[in-house]
Amino acid sequence: MTEIQDQAGAFVPGPRIGHAPLAAGPLSGRTFAVKDLFDVAGAVTTYGNPDWARTHAAAIATAPIVQSLLLSGAECVGKTKTVELAYGLTGENVWQGTPRNPRAPDRFPGGSSCGSAAAVAAGLADFALGSDTGGSVRIPASYCGLFGLRPTHGAISLAGARALAPSLDTPGWFARDAGLLEAIGDVLLPPGPARLGGPLLRVEEAWMNARPDVAETLRRSLSHLETRFGPALGLNLIPEGLSTLNEHFRCVQAEEVWSTLGDWVTATRPTFGPGVSERFIAAKAMDPARAAAGRVFRHAMQARLRPLLAGGAILVMPTSPCPAPLLTSSILHQNEVRAATMGVTAIAGFCGAPEVTLPVGTAEGAPVGLSFVAAPGMDRALLAFARAAADDLREHA
Amino acid sequence: MTEIQDQAGAFVPGPRIGHAPLAAGPLSGRTFAVKDLFDVAGAVTTYGNPDWARTHAAAIATAPIVQSLLLSGAECVGKTKTVELAYGLTGENVWQGTPRNPRAPDRFPGGSSCGSAAAVAAGLADFALGSDTGGSVRIPASYCGLFGLRPTHGAISLAGARALAPSLDTPGWFARDAGLLEAIGDVLLPPGPARLGGPLLRVEEAWMNARPDVAETLRRSLSHLETRFGPALGLNLIPEGLSTLNEHFRCVQAEEVWSTLGDWVTATRPTFGPGVSERFIAAKAMDPARAAAGRVFRHAMQARLRPLLAGGAILVMPTSPCPAPLLTSSILHQNEVRAATMGVTAIAGFCGAPEVTLPVGTAEGAPVGLSFVAAPGMDRALLAFARAAADDLREHA
Repeated sequence: MTEIQDQAGAFVPGPRIGHAPLAAGPLSGRTFAVKDLFDVAGAVTTYGNPDWARTHAAAIATAPIVQSLLLSGAECVGKTKTVELAYGLTGENVWQGTPRNPRAPDRFPGGSSCGSAAAVAAGLADFALGSDTGGSVRIPASYCGLFGLRPTHGAISLAGARALAPSLDTPGWFARDAGLLEAIGDVLLPPGPARLGGPLLRVEEAWMNARPDVAETLRRSLSHLETRFGPALGLNLIPEGLSTLNEHFRCVQAEEVWSTLGDWVTATRPTFGPGVSERFIAAKAMDPARAAAGRVFRHAMQARLRPLLAGGAILVMPTSPCPAPLLTSSILHQNEVRAATMGVTAIAGFCGAPEVTLPVGTAEGAPVGLSFVAAPGMDRALLAFARAAADDLREHA
Repeated sequence: MTEIQDQAGAFVPGPRIGHAPLAAGPLSGRTFAVKDLFDVAGAVTTYGNPDWARTHAAAIATAPIVQSLLLSGAECVGKTKTVELAYGLTGENVWQGTPRNPRAPDRFPGGSSCGSAAAVAAGLADFALGSDTGGSVRIPASYCGLFGLRPTHGAISLAGARALAPSLDTPGWFARDAGLLEAIGDVLLPPGPARLGGPLLRVEEAWMNARPDVAETLRRSLSHLETRFGPALGLNLIPEGLSTLNEHFRCVQAEEVWSTLGDWVTATRPTFGPGVSERFIAAKAMDPARAAAGRVFRHAMQARLRPLLAGGAILVMPTSPCPAPLLTSSILHQNEVRAATMGVTAIAGFCGAPEVTLPVGTAEGAPVGLSFVAAPGMDRALLAFARAAADDLREHA
């Protein structure tokens, strides 16, 4: 197995769980890491929490998505840390140690796929698998200066992966360049249209929601893209406000989280780190009427967004409203960032739509990402668009 | 033939050119008038100009669109005045007399389908055929407080109708209620989807372009519709500005007008009324490079708008930025209104998209219309939407 010095603290502690390629293929010569909520046969999937690890046996089978990568020639070099039960966005893990953000060492790496992002950003793997329910691939990608994809909900099997909120959960992956991000999609995604014709739709609420220096950096990048892809059209997509969207998303997610994990939590009484603990308490107490209202809102969002994107239009918006919070930031600040962030990530999340984030610059020296959202099923076309956009931006860099 | 007292000055002077129904059908019992650029066998189609009438023989055949209506049970009660060669928006005709606007007698009726709008608004016919190149159905419908449709370009044959700018010309029709507007569509339109799912997209530039009192009246109506159809989402569709769009449209139209009618004008040296004369002089002098730039812009507009509407979204905007100009208004003012109006009508015009206008209120006591634009081919669904919207608005009236 490829020997790696884990200077980012990206991998789960203990013996490295790697796997040689199962065949030669398009990903031959590439290494990858796997978020520790996907099963690799013979190892306990810790899901980021010691009580989970203690109460679960070693996996019998390797998750199909990991198998597909191994069968395509890639080598698995280890399993990476996740926020406990994937229920957090900063990337903190008090049990296994929070991975370092290689691009901004005084800041969080973002989560919940924190170890995967850190491993790729540090060059410990060429790419990494993560999962995304409310932003867990997109946000660490943005924070660590990586390309990241949240694919169409349901497009890729989550068999052999731990669930959090199944109607929102997707796998996802990170890479340092858009070409590899796309090559992974070629292996994992079902067939679909190859090209998006645009236009670009600038989600005004998400831009207004971003910190001014972040918006300015991203706007400069967007202006380069407009030369090739035509003017971005301003769209007020969420007249109800991002905070309303965030709150509906939070309620839907929380109810599902408790439905999925409540029995285990009740039986096991696990110890959770700060933040995660509070979220499980809130999930347990979620008012069914609020979750039901959230599902009605989700349906309205889908009915609103899907027709707009069906013809090939692409939303463009800041992936996150600010760079990664400082490691020294208060919980209060982190919670504010979380709420502001999930109002944006919930757009694709609620609509089951694919979102790709591109690293396009920095704010206060820390990376920030620009996101593009396409209609469900347009993942391949979105990845091709992202590659073309990355080429354009490189020319202007 | 049904006897009619033409108190609106809507019909072309001389013997009334009517036609009995050719069969019983869904339009039995309904009367209609026909803009005098559609042929009715045996009569000279004047195209609104005495030199045109003088140099053209009586039509041998009746236009298929008129035939379809007669075969569906409707009775033709006469041919109605048009602006000369359909090249004008106020509805003035110095040769045949400008029809009165029955809803605002001190104002223009709108054109070029002025007589058709006046006839329906005065109750002289249940509905009327017009044609629309740059707004010639939509604008008189708005000015006279009528429902009006400009269908998808190319969806209905213009055989037996005089051309103005073929890549922009469509037929169209007026009615006093949305149910009849739809029933006519059932007879004339090719099959197509029956339902539009939305969302409503508020074209911000068109709303900003409207006179504040007009925008306020229309906004009140729109707010009633949002209860049923969901919130209208703001869209900046034309970052280049409506004046840019208007200018590109003007150039494309002018070049085509000269290509279509220039030989006749050169050979005949007709006398035109004010406004029309100036427009033909400009059409003759149109710089091919400017028209070519206009066609490039049209292509970009199509590439921008069609994908946005393909999934069932509907643009909503003021049909015209102001009510009909006063009969006493200056030519300068009329030209300003024309430019501001055609920047909005060019949206559907350039994209070949269907647009329906609903009479929803008044400004300064004169009617104003609210327009909805759907994807090309969605005419039937757009008419069904208009009927549902009209029902909703009647409840709130």
